Amino acid sequence: MIPLGIAIHGGAGTILRSHMTPELQAQYENALKEALNKGYSLLGQGGTAVDAVAAAVMVLEDFPLFNAGKGSVFNHIGKHEMDAAIMDGSDLSAGAVAGICGVRNPIALAKLVMQRSEHVMLFGKGAEDFALQQKLPVEEETYFFNEQRFQQWQEALAEDRVSLDHNDKKFGTVGAVALDASGNLAAATSTGGMTNKKFGRVGDSPIIGAGTYASNTSCAVSCTGHGELFIRTVMGHDISCLMEYKGLSLHEACDVLVHDKLVKIGGEGGLVAIDRHGNIAMPFNSEGMYRGFKNSDGKMQVAIYKE
Amino acid sequence: MIPLGIAIHGGAGTILRSHMTPELQAQYENALKEALNKGYSLLGQGGTAVDAVAAAVMVLEDFPLFNAGKGSVFNHIGKHEMDAAIMDGSDLSAGAVAGICGVRNPIALAKLVMQRSEHVMLFGKGAEDFALQQKLPVEEETYFFNEQRFQQWQEALAEDRVSLDHNDKKFGTVGAVALDASGNLAAATSTGGMTNKKFGRVGDSPIIGAGTYASNTSCAVSCTGHGELFIRTVMGHDISCLMEYKGLSLHEACDVLVHDKLVKIGGEGGLVAIDRHGNIAMPFNSEGMYRGFKNSDGKMQVAIYKE
Repeated sequence: MIPLGIAIHGGAGTILRSHMTPELQAQYENALKEALNKGYSLLGQGGTAVDAVAAAVMVLEDFPLFNAGKGSVFNHIGKHEMDAAIMDGSDLSAGAVAGICGVRNPIALAKLVMQRSEHVMLFGKGAEDFALQQKLPVEEETYFFNEQRFQQWQEALAEDRVSLDHNDKKFGTVGAVALDASGNLAAATSTGGMTNKKFGRVGDSPIIGAGTYASNTSCAVSCTGHGELFIRTVMGHDISCLMEYKGLSLHEACDVLVHDKLVKIGGEGGLVAIDRHGNIAMPFNSEGMYRGFKNSDGKMQVAIYKE
Repeated sequence: MIPLGIAIHGGAGTILRSHMTPELQAQYENALKEALNKGYSLLGQGGTAVDAVAAAVMVLEDFPLFNAGKGSVFNHIGKHEMDAAIMDGSDLSAGAVAGICGVRNPIALAKLVMQRSEHVMLFGKGAEDFALQQKLPVEEETYFFNEQRFQQWQEALAEDRVSLDHNDKKFGTVGAVALDASGNLAAATSTGGMTNKKFGRVGDSPIIGAGTYASNTSCAVSCTGHGELFIRTVMGHDISCLMEYKGLSLHEACDVLVHDKLVKIGGEGGLVAIDRHGNIAMPFNSEGMYRGFKNSDGKMQVAIYKE
């Protein structure tokens, strides 16, 4: 009997309790629960891990609470430039998009790149053209408009700084990992990047091996944090290799990356991961991480701060 | 006494002897030798591995023979859209650019992204803006024009196909790896992509961990081949992990990737790699690969076909 499981995150960072109200906390927790239930119900019906992670991430993309999809931050020129990636651990197939505007659900586009193109990664206008060809829903700028994000951008513009999500130092990214009834693993990640970002910066989310990785031989991983450092450590794939080549458990491998390697190069963030036995890890070295999991042991949990 | 060494490639694939003349072969060999001598002379003067690989790749980018820099192929809309990446094994710093037009030496831009920006990867117009800000040489379309490449594009357009470099099935990419007198490793890769490519496709070259990777704990790797499969196998980082976590030698690790893992998922291509002891590997599973190395044992070799 193969266990089922899904774990998700909605970004890591210094999430200050002083900025949190009971109402806002309930909104975050409800959004996380909705994403978990959506993904897990697909797994329970015999759906694939790929479909489950894509569905869970789409739920989070549709909430304005998270910096992905609808809630994406403003870049330097007032646009919402998004990245996403998905990987199927059963055959190492993968799809990724970077620097796309207007596409309602970037993770849906990444999935189509994986399933209907010969390529793994498409960027910018070319990726948007592929979205149109595939008839994915495209939204006007107004869909992505959010007064709070707009004010954050105006403040960042005035101070000429590039800032992370929210008033708090938060790495706004959403992601999911899952294990399905066939024993297949998958990972998906989606992000709106950094407020006021310039120069077409690409973070770790759409980089296969860095922010997103899955292999049935080991685990599935979705990261959130200081993207540049996650790229340099090849975070997702390194966890997989520590398990496959060095025999570490999922938790041991995640600890090496998040609490040792990442810390040594000054990196902050976290990740969600699941292995082929259904073990789930949700480590982070920041103050908090929006996170949750649901599995076939009947357990479900959502959390924001450190325990 | 730390040995010095540099290895380079100018692309892998089915390089047909029937399409090769003695004059053309001499041109390729001279270009490879010029790149090796340029990079090695820097190493001999106490220069860094980073400077050596960047200099060697710039020499290859400036020849119209290779599909990188000046010799880049035409994409679907008649532009030359280039990718490049560089990584410093001493501190895992890295820089990458994707989908850039007009920049004379994409590898020089990737190096500046590594050294003068807070980011690892920039794409498209944003990356071009950064090149202008850094006062890198920018060229008109005419600089990249080449009658043979133009005809290849016209034929590909007429047949509505995306094709690899040249008349032969060749993966046109250039790259270099080096070990310097301080024991530091570095890798660099640059490419002009695929003739008639659409949708802003990004291959493995600018993906840290895939086509380009370096770590002083193991090795430096630069790949050339069917980019999508190199991304999915996280080629460069996987070789590094097999050495670091499983204790394989450089040659053993390269063989696992190029002659086993890559073959199993239908991938064709090759790579150059060097470890911290100065061992050099240049494996490929295609008919040929433009390649060469030079080291402090006084050895220098360039080759195109299988031995």
